[in-house]
Amino acid sequence: MNSRVTVREVSLRDGLQIEKPIPLSAKLELLAAVAATGVREVEATAFVSPSKVPAMADAAELAAELPNYPDIEFSALVASPNGAKRAIAAGLRAIEYVVAASDSFSEANVGRSSAEATGQIGEILAIARSSEVTVEVIVATAWDCPFDGPTPPQRVLDIAAVARDLGVDRFSIADTIGTTTPGRVSSLIAQLRPVIGDIPLGGHFHNTRGAGLASAYAAVCSGVTRLDASVGGLGGCPFAPGATGNIATEDLVYLLVDSGFEVDVDLPAAIAAAEVAKSVVGHDLPGYLLRAGDRIRN
Amino acid sequence: MNSRVTVREVSLRDGLQIEKPIPLSAKLELLAAVAATGVREVEATAFVSPSKVPAMADAAELAAELPNYPDIEFSALVASPNGAKRAIAAGLRAIEYVVAASDSFSEANVGRSSAEATGQIGEILAIARSSEVTVEVIVATAWDCPFDGPTPPQRVLDIAAVARDLGVDRFSIADTIGTTTPGRVSSLIAQLRPVIGDIPLGGHFHNTRGAGLASAYAAVCSGVTRLDASVGGLGGCPFAPGATGNIATEDLVYLLVDSGFEVDVDLPAAIAAAEVAKSVVGHDLPGYLLRAGDRIRN
Repeated sequence: MNSRVTVREVSLRDGLQIEKPIPLSAKLELLAAVAATGVREVEATAFVSPSKVPAMADAAELAAELPNYPDIEFSALVASPNGAKRAIAAGLRAIEYVVAASDSFSEANVGRSSAEATGQIGEILAIARSSEVTVEVIVATAWDCPFDGPTPPQRVLDIAAVARDLGVDRFSIADTIGTTTPGRVSSLIAQLRPVIGDIPLGGHFHNTRGAGLASAYAAVCSGVTRLDASVGGLGGCPFAPGATGNIATEDLVYLLVDSGFEVDVDLPAAIAAAEVAKSVVGHDLPGYLLRAGDRIRN
Repeated sequence: MNSRVTVREVSLRDGLQIEKPIPLSAKLELLAAVAATGVREVEATAFVSPSKVPAMADAAELAAELPNYPDIEFSALVASPNGAKRAIAAGLRAIEYVVAASDSFSEANVGRSSAEATGQIGEILAIARSSEVTVEVIVATAWDCPFDGPTPPQRVLDIAAVARDLGVDRFSIADTIGTTTPGRVSSLIAQLRPVIGDIPLGGHFHNTRGAGLASAYAAVCSGVTRLDASVGGLGGCPFAPGATGNIATEDLVYLLVDSGFEVDVDLPAAIAAAEVAKSVVGHDLPGYLLRAGDRIRN
């Protein structure tokens, strides 16, 4: 087991994606707070349809501000070759391409089957390679689909094999709807590892059913070295606003450090950033340390 | 790893303990809902000072109703030999004796040092044995004390050695203030096992910092076979009412079953019982499945 875990901050993209759009100035305030945590990787925005995701319509404007933080590796999510081109034109050096493992979610999300979306990995990679940009493939609905039910693990393994053969830089698995649990996390990772070899593996978990941190911990114990998290647990919820969302950065950092792992993120700074997140969206957030604070010590 | 986990329902004691006292009829309504989950072990009440814990003042009256549920093993918490006598006189067949591993918490809680409280295990056992009643020793503040800071593991091991030598029936470790994390859970259990041998080991976790389910899962993966939980996550919180509490029975059951463990508790019935808990205390509860529901499936 690796004792070092990279926490990628996703509040600016996954966190804000379903919120009412906030001004660029508010995003920059959140970005400054996030940067102050010492985090080395930040998912900054998404180059997707502005009509479908209005909260990300300012992607290029936000991207223009990123060079102010030269110590952070910023990435942007894309859902198509055109999105990849836009991201690279805006100056991003790392892109995440999302492929849903289930067909119904893929159709609902991007109007293409899972196989069709997988078939575009090569084109995305070619676009990125010509600009020396890295590509991460993220498999959405890696465990369950809200429409198709449980995702057969073989679907994830097949996408992973394509991604590996094409030479992607990183690979991640995402529990899009917050239904997975530690047992299924460990099981899928054990099946994935022989397929992806030494490609760095990341995990993305939501806390919709309370098991997000448990799943994240199972993931690092199974060899995942990169975890997405969002300050305050920003990330909305399809069921009850404010009740769930991404796993909260500060809660994850508390758990990992207390359990003996090393992370780049400073805990008090992460709690402070969660307060900023709460302020810029104007509502409570589900993170626990926002309420309970750090461990009580003499 | 044992594939079967016993979930003990503690909403009637730990869940209600810091709530404003509710009528016996409301407790019986909650008990009926809890019994309908199929749970085999229930912590029914506490025989402690009614002036200190008014919510448990009706312990004997509640105990009189327990024979209505012959399939459930009921236990009661006690903090002294006198409490043990009262519990047994009221008809309980299983008692839990709590010993805090930290002195400041022990003094604040029962007016005795940890060593003094440990010294009473023998007397409690003698009282119980004369009535063929089983005794579980629960170590409170097993990882951290709100006053003394981190608890040296040796303190827990020393209490365990005394409990083992005296022949207690069960042994449990409790994260009283909700600060522990999976790494420290696994570590303490690994140190405990050689001390307690094959005495059944239980775990009691609070979700104050979001890590309760992760710690519970780490515990079962480390050999704990019994976990306390409370429907809805009833159990209050010293920091923010409604925000945290015991780990929620329904969230725990969801996680364990989805991860491949067997439990006695039926998930839909546990969610229904959480709704009853919410209704009898008259405020929201922190359990996740209360909001998100069971996994979406075709």
